[in-house]
Amino acid sequence: MTVSSIDRLIFLLAKLPGLGPRSARRAALYLIKRKDALFAPLFAAMGEVLENIVNCSVCGNIGVNDPCAICADQNRDASAICIVEEVADLWALERLGSFKGRYHVLGGVLSALDGVGPEDLNIPALAARAAKPEVKEVIIATNATVDGQTTAHYIASRLERPGVKITGLAHGAPIGGELDYLDEGTLMVALKGRGPL
Amino acid sequence: MTVSSIDRLIFLLAKLPGLGPRSARRAALYLIKRKDALFAPLFAAMGEVLENIVNCSVCGNIGVNDPCAICADQNRDASAICIVEEVADLWALERLGSFKGRYHVLGGVLSALDGVGPEDLNIPALAARAAKPEVKEVIIATNATVDGQTTAHYIASRLERPGVKITGLAHGAPIGGELDYLDEGTLMVALKGRGPL
Repeated sequence: MTVSSIDRLIFLLAKLPGLGPRSARRAALYLIKRKDALFAPLFAAMGEVLENIVNCSVCGNIGVNDPCAICADQNRDASAICIVEEVADLWALERLGSFKGRYHVLGGVLSALDGVGPEDLNIPALAARAAKPEVKEVIIATNATVDGQTTAHYIASRLERPGVKITGLAHGAPIGGELDYLDEGTLMVALKGRGPL
Repeated sequence: MTVSSIDRLIFLLAKLPGLGPRSARRAALYLIKRKDALFAPLFAAMGEVLENIVNCSVCGNIGVNDPCAICADQNRDASAICIVEEVADLWALERLGSFKGRYHVLGGVLSALDGVGPEDLNIPALAARAAKPEVKEVIIATNATVDGQTTAHYIASRLERPGVKITGLAHGAPIGGELDYLDEGTLMVALKGRGPL
């Protein structure tokens, strides 16, 4: 069984994003060689996450409690909800430490090609949250892709009501980027959206 | 604790070869999103390997039994021992399915810089194995690096005895490779080692 159990480990590791069959083999041997220093701790950490992780029933974030730490934090501004596609996007915004409102994780984007409709995303719960009187701003931070923007427009039209500001992230040249390397779409947006210096 | 346990999982995943902090974060979210399809099976496979894996006391290979499946296989030719640096090299040769002898895994190479001497490698056991009368050939398949070749020469001098052929892998242009892209060292070796077509 040993060969087959190692093979199975490699097969499963190879399914991780960023690893292929060859790097999964390397990773498996690396783990086996560092049994106490890495393999056992990683196994323990995986077990802990696997056992404790839950989806927040309010916003769709992941965590060990439901509601999640952000939704449960009374110090966070309940008047602003930032809508993101995935938990990774929420994490990216949280790393900034600048936004103090609440989040809502869609769990994907609308996509006619992939057959993803509004009912497949976390949108009904969002509509209910955004209808609450304390909500004054909804920031739609879906990705600047075709599907992401389609989803943004759908959500904007669905959440529209008096007294709620619906906003999107600014688009333009990234900080530190060189114009020469920018794609034409971004450059066009940056030019059209130019403002006073 | 949720955040810290996920953070710990990401921190440990990032130590795998081929993954960095960003791809480890992606991998962790990927796992959490595919809890039943990937996360739980991977956790189970890791547990099985972690619990059952042993080093073969004969050759240094890894497996669930000691001696390993190759050393225990009576159909394999005991007269030839192929010496490799790492288990990964043994696997590479086994994938060929062409060599029917036994292996010996050194677990590294001699390196004055890193302070690795003969006693740090699996060399004493190798000397004892190679001294057995049934051994007729020792193939030294260490890597074609400076340290690998130093190790090969050290082992060759140590195992030398009448009746034992000590061989090394052939060096030259790789099959399918273009001369234009070959490094000079390889091209030189290929030219010097030219043979009749």
